Amino acid sequence: MTTVDPTYAACPVPLPESERVLLGHGAGGQLSADLVTGLLLPALGSAAPAGPLEDAAVVPVGGVDVVISTDAYVVSPLFFPGGDIGCLAVHGTVNDLAMRAATPVALALAYVVEEGFPLADLRRVAASAGRAAAAAGVAVVCGDTKVVGRGAADGLYVVSTGIGHRPPGAAPSAGAVVSGDVVLLSGPIGSHGTAILSVREGLGFDADIASDTRPLHRLVAAMTAAGGTGVHALRDPTRGGLASALNEIAAASGVPVEIDEAALPVPPAVAAACEILGLDPAHVANEGCLVAFVAPERADEVLTAMRGLPEGGGAVRIGTVADHGEPGRVTVRTAVGSRRVLDMLVGEQLPRIC
Amino acid sequence: MTTVDPTYAACPVPLPESERVLLGHGAGGQLSADLVTGLLLPALGSAAPAGPLEDAAVVPVGGVDVVISTDAYVVSPLFFPGGDIGCLAVHGTVNDLAMRAATPVALALAYVVEEGFPLADLRRVAASAGRAAAAAGVAVVCGDTKVVGRGAADGLYVVSTGIGHRPPGAAPSAGAVVSGDVVLLSGPIGSHGTAILSVREGLGFDADIASDTRPLHRLVAAMTAAGGTGVHALRDPTRGGLASALNEIAAASGVPVEIDEAALPVPPAVAAACEILGLDPAHVANEGCLVAFVAPERADEVLTAMRGLPEGGGAVRIGTVADHGEPGRVTVRTAVGSRRVLDMLVGEQLPRIC
Repeated sequence: MTTVDPTYAACPVPLPESERVLLGHGAGGQLSADLVTGLLLPALGSAAPAGPLEDAAVVPVGGVDVVISTDAYVVSPLFFPGGDIGCLAVHGTVNDLAMRAATPVALALAYVVEEGFPLADLRRVAASAGRAAAAAGVAVVCGDTKVVGRGAADGLYVVSTGIGHRPPGAAPSAGAVVSGDVVLLSGPIGSHGTAILSVREGLGFDADIASDTRPLHRLVAAMTAAGGTGVHALRDPTRGGLASALNEIAAASGVPVEIDEAALPVPPAVAAACEILGLDPAHVANEGCLVAFVAPERADEVLTAMRGLPEGGGAVRIGTVADHGEPGRVTVRTAVGSRRVLDMLVGEQLPRIC
Repeated sequence: MTTVDPTYAACPVPLPESERVLLGHGAGGQLSADLVTGLLLPALGSAAPAGPLEDAAVVPVGGVDVVISTDAYVVSPLFFPGGDIGCLAVHGTVNDLAMRAATPVALALAYVVEEGFPLADLRRVAASAGRAAAAAGVAVVCGDTKVVGRGAADGLYVVSTGIGHRPPGAAPSAGAVVSGDVVLLSGPIGSHGTAILSVREGLGFDADIASDTRPLHRLVAAMTAAGGTGVHALRDPTRGGLASALNEIAAASGVPVEIDEAALPVPPAVAAACEILGLDPAHVANEGCLVAFVAPERADEVLTAMRGLPEGGGAVRIGTVADHGEPGRVTVRTAVGSRRVLDMLVGEQLPRIC
């Protein structure tokens, strides 16, 4: 699901016609946001969505709030430590629905496969998707499969679209964060992106790092049960990492966010891999954690609820929404007491991470 | 949206692990059905859908019947006489929803673009999708864009997923056809597939044949208003053509279908192109017509309603459901009075047609 900083949506800068798509346009950072807000949304015209863009859209259907989200998966390699493109496609979409406090109900899976792709691998991917869907309690209700010529899909791409039901109650939104909110993170960051890159670049961290891909809807249910309408915003920091998720929410709500660097849980192997790759762990994709903005008076209850589930066992408080500072800016207090701005990912350093 | 003969779903034949994906697995005929029923559905296990597979699935969400359908578009070339991959993706999904008598409500669009693809072309595709959505009265509520390396997506693939609302009343289903039903066709067949092939093969029919891509939900609304629950089954004969659509419905309902060849509207240019290409027009993809199975006492009213709209101006009666004959078999009465079996498309003659 595309998420963009709505300050850009409000003031799109048309991209020059002579230009071409860059790998960085798909990396989930600033270039991706520019492509969406400068080209794709304006081109849609009156059919384009209004309001801040979220992990999933809420659509009234026959008087019921239906939540919908779509994601294309082009991860390379297709099989990686901790998962594969099949379960990733299910978890990613379940999680996007969960970030709007929706209970996932049904999934649609579309495959684009290239001629010559081994049927055994296709079966393995489909079986993984099936297991992930069954474990998440969601049915795959429809699908589509297209075949393209050799070399024209790098094996296999998967697009998953999910619909969910949002009962009355918590309605978290990127634009609903207010001064004083506490920022919670459900667990360690950086595992998915570094697991993929380790395999792709042959770094040899495969034994130490596995993708964190997993469904988060039960975690969200526990959080909203504990925090109710005090759960103001949720986001799963996938492409673009924690930094992009924080920047998107800070911008959508027009608030300054302050993060305590020492509180960020980065596994040692992830830190080592990021060191070698020259990456900030805050820019690396995750597929099994979420960041939450919660009213201060409900933060402890929500944190306790998170820690009561395996997927929230490592939940920590990582920052706050300040009552002063530049709206939309994310600042990090470093371990030595200095401050730096935490920007969105720029450029193409992490293509095809999900 | 994948549609399969449910007799195969009931008795899946596992495909050998050693085999590989063929172009024909994507052509919408028998091989596509084998892939879905022999591999993809069994692999999904308990997460797989039950019952006859349709153009779209009906999912109860919070007490409301939500209809959902997904389609991957890999058509080559991206721009063709009468349309492009953008409007095609919108029309195709709107039509799949309409075949379950749903009013389309919202669309999700996912793009897989390759590095180096001209931004001007991407804008053109997105604008076409936006115009098609606005004309169909449906909003694009979410999207996703992924970028892959040069050559890894043959330009651009688009996956569109739609949700719709089915009000109480007509609930057409591939499995609801009964003896005596009249078979109606909304207009000429073969234009989309021959338009694509003419461009791709350089046949020079471009001036005479344009794709029939268009939305059909208003036509369906007029049909159900006129025919009510007498509209038993609807299908838009895309990949695999009219022959596959008829075979799928005949098999799902377990009835013999008899078609009058002389009644099939095939434009002269389409007939000429099919002659050159060695194709049966009944196997060629359409993107702007539908086939309907209607109770005989409502057929005249439904036909009149169809003819009252531009997209149904060429509607004709093409056959009946016989009260004798082999269940699941589609027979054609030829112009000279003989009979032949109309089979599903077999093989790879029409890859990347949509």
